[in-house]
Amino acid sequence: MFISFEGIDGSGKSTQAKRLAEALRAEGREVLLTREPGGSPGAEEIRRLLVEGTGERWSAETECLLFFAARRDHLERTIRPALAAGKTVITDRFSDSSRVYQGATRGDLRGMVDKLHDLSIGIEPDRSFVIEIDPAIGLARGKARGGTEDRFESLGLSFQQKLATGFRALAQEYPARVRLIDGSGSPEDVAARVRAAL
Amino acid sequence: MFISFEGIDGSGKSTQAKRLAEALRAEGREVLLTREPGGSPGAEEIRRLLVEGTGERWSAETECLLFFAARRDHLERTIRPALAAGKTVITDRFSDSSRVYQGATRGDLRGMVDKLHDLSIGIEPDRSFVIEIDPAIGLARGKARGGTEDRFESLGLSFQQKLATGFRALAQEYPARVRLIDGSGSPEDVAARVRAAL
Repeated sequence: MFISFEGIDGSGKSTQAKRLAEALRAEGREVLLTREPGGSPGAEEIRRLLVEGTGERWSAETECLLFFAARRDHLERTIRPALAAGKTVITDRFSDSSRVYQGATRGDLRGMVDKLHDLSIGIEPDRSFVIEIDPAIGLARGKARGGTEDRFESLGLSFQQKLATGFRALAQEYPARVRLIDGSGSPEDVAARVRAAL
Repeated sequence: MFISFEGIDGSGKSTQAKRLAEALRAEGREVLLTREPGGSPGAEEIRRLLVEGTGERWSAETECLLFFAARRDHLERTIRPALAAGKTVITDRFSDSSRVYQGATRGDLRGMVDKLHDLSIGIEPDRSFVIEIDPAIGLARGKARGGTEDRFESLGLSFQQKLATGFRALAQEYPARVRLIDGSGSPEDVAARVRAAL
C-alpha cells in the first residue's frame, strides 16, 4: 500500500505521517516512511536547491522540473523497491504537492505538472490525506520552526491561502483517492481522524 | 543570432565556441558566450549534480529532468535576455546534447527528451555546429583535463562512440540547422571550417 500525506507548510502532515507509520508498525506491518522533496540520496541533494534561498531563486517552470527530477529519483530508488518488497510506503508529499504548489498558484502551469507526472512518474498513491489547517496558523508554525528551509514560507500568507484552496480542490478532482482531514485539535485527535479515514 | 556548439567530450567544441565569440567581437558584434549545463547561477548549481560523481548517480530519466531544469533556468535568465538585447548568443551545448546523451544512448528516451524540450524550452538555435572527432581521441583529451567533472567520461569508449554516432545523425534530422565540422587539425583549421559554414 502506498499512502501520501499532503497539506500546506505547518499543517502537521509530517507528524501525522510519522504517527501512522508507528501505528502500522505496532500492528506488525513493515513500513517505509519517506518524504519529498528528498527521500533518496540524490533527491535530498535536489531538495537543498528547492527549499533554501529566496522565493525568486527559480521560476515556477524550473521549480517544476526540479521537483519531478527529485521525485523520479525518489520513486526509482526508494518507493518502488520498498513496494516491491511488500512494504507499506508512507510519503510526506508526492505529485499532489506539485499540482498545488506550481499548478494551483500559477494556473497555467497545471498542464505542465500533469505532463511531467505522466512522463516521469505515472503512479498515484492508493490513498492521500490532506491535513487541513488555517493558512495563518500553518505559516506561523512554519516560521517558528526556524532553520534555512523557509523558501516557500517566505512567499507569504496569500501564497499559503492559494495552496490551501488548491489542496481542497484536489479532493473534488480525485474523490476516490484524496481525503480531507480536519487538522485542528491535538495530534492524537488528528491521528484518530486519519485512522478512521483509512 | 543564436548559435550552439555540440559534440562529444574532448571534441574541441568549447575552444571553437570561444574562438567564434572572439572573432565576432572583433567584427564589432556584441556576443554572449555561455555553456551548458550551467550558464546561469542556478543552472551552474544543477551542473554540479550532473557532471560530478559516478555514472550511476542518476538514472537516464532523472538526468533528463535535471538537464531540462538547468536549461530552462539558463534560457530564462541568460539566453533570452541577451537575445532580447540584440546580442549574438553562442552556447557550448543546448538541447541537441540531451537528444544525444540521453536519447541516442538509450533509444527509448528520445521521446521523453522531445517532450521535455517542447514543454520547457521550445526554441532551437539558428545554427548548430557539431565538432566531430574520433571518440578515442576525445575521451583521452577529456581524461587528460583531469578535475572532478568526469562523470560522462567515466562511462567509457563505447558510450562515447554511441554519442558520436548520435551527433552525426542530428545533421540528417535537422539539415537546415545542424552542420558537421571536421574537428581534426589545428584549432585554427577547425575555426576556419566553422567560419566557412557560418
